Amino acid sequence: MRVALMEAARRLVADVGFPNLRIAELAEAAGVSVGTFYLYFEGKADLFVQLVLDDTVRLRKRLQEAVEGGGTVLERLARRFDAYTDFVLENENGFRYFRDSDAVDTNKGRLSAWALDQHAADLRPLLEEGMETGELRVMDAELLAQAIVALLQHFVDVWMADSDNRSLEQIRSFSDQLIAFGILPVPGTRGAGGEAAH
Amino acid sequence: MRVALMEAARRLVADVGFPNLRIAELAEAAGVSVGTFYLYFEGKADLFVQLVLDDTVRLRKRLQEAVEGGGTVLERLARRFDAYTDFVLENENGFRYFRDSDAVDTNKGRLSAWALDQHAADLRPLLEEGMETGELRVMDAELLAQAIVALLQHFVDVWMADSDNRSLEQIRSFSDQLIAFGILPVPGTRGAGGEAAH
Repeated sequence: MRVALMEAARRLVADVGFPNLRIAELAEAAGVSVGTFYLYFEGKADLFVQLVLDDTVRLRKRLQEAVEGGGTVLERLARRFDAYTDFVLENENGFRYFRDSDAVDTNKGRLSAWALDQHAADLRPLLEEGMETGELRVMDAELLAQAIVALLQHFVDVWMADSDNRSLEQIRSFSDQLIAFGILPVPGTRGAGGEAAH
Repeated sequence: MRVALMEAARRLVADVGFPNLRIAELAEAAGVSVGTFYLYFEGKADLFVQLVLDDTVRLRKRLQEAVEGGGTVLERLARRFDAYTDFVLENENGFRYFRDSDAVDTNKGRLSAWALDQHAADLRPLLEEGMETGELRVMDAELLAQAIVALLQHFVDVWMADSDNRSLEQIRSFSDQLIAFGILPVPGTRGAGGEAAH
């Protein structure tokens, strides 16, 4: 029952957006009564929290699968980033609503902070591997994982606020370059000196 | 009156934190009656919003002053980052409370998003100047300004969640390196090839 309700909810959110989702319509789409809905969810707000929790599990699974199957650390990182942007595009309406109601408070604290911590913890071993093989500079892996996840999350926000002018692909390519090279001229590419920041 | 109340509020927040601030105590510290407080503020929540708005103006002023007085773009960027971390340390209690009640909603939308947009717009000309002089790689200046501001803001969050184990100075130095060089090995420094991201 819960699975059917969640799946129907996901389809309706993608279709009409969360604010326009009606419990009666959801129950009908899931083939259950409205009373059954309230056996599983306290109400519409609770449904939203459960959707976000489930989606975070689904997203983490996709991200972890994306780094399986070999390749260099950089290739696996790129696949992980791809999986993230793909998931955002597939669940755009849900992400938009989540962004607009950013501070969903639960017994896990703010959901967005909780999700970010989980993604950072998932990402960290790959970064550590890259530092061991010399593909990445040796840095504080925990801070780096936090930074990358926060940056990607922020870029999704930027895209959502300005999706008429910029595609997610453009923003994604910008963030790849920034994360890879930083802001200083890359020595050799434009004859710059690679002067240290300070 | 409002100025006296705001100044007293700032001292009390730094001293006892916002949750422990009491209106009666605040009025006494500012030398006004409780009734006068309510002429200027709708209540404690409104006081908090006004404090954040005022602090954002003060912070922007400090950040702008930090880049005055010449120097290379990188030097001015470094001074701007210093001014930011100094301000965080001076107003640590306020920042902590702001972080914990992240989604303060106002007629400017979410305050944190509003502040971030302002800081990004302030930062952008300096980045553009650096791209013109060749001190920085040529990139989308708007996205870069957003990325840097969001990253610094996130690092303050990370520090606040974990300030027992990491000093702001450590995190600051990490973010300088990441923003400057990215995650790839810097060619020449460790004999790495500087392979492109993908």
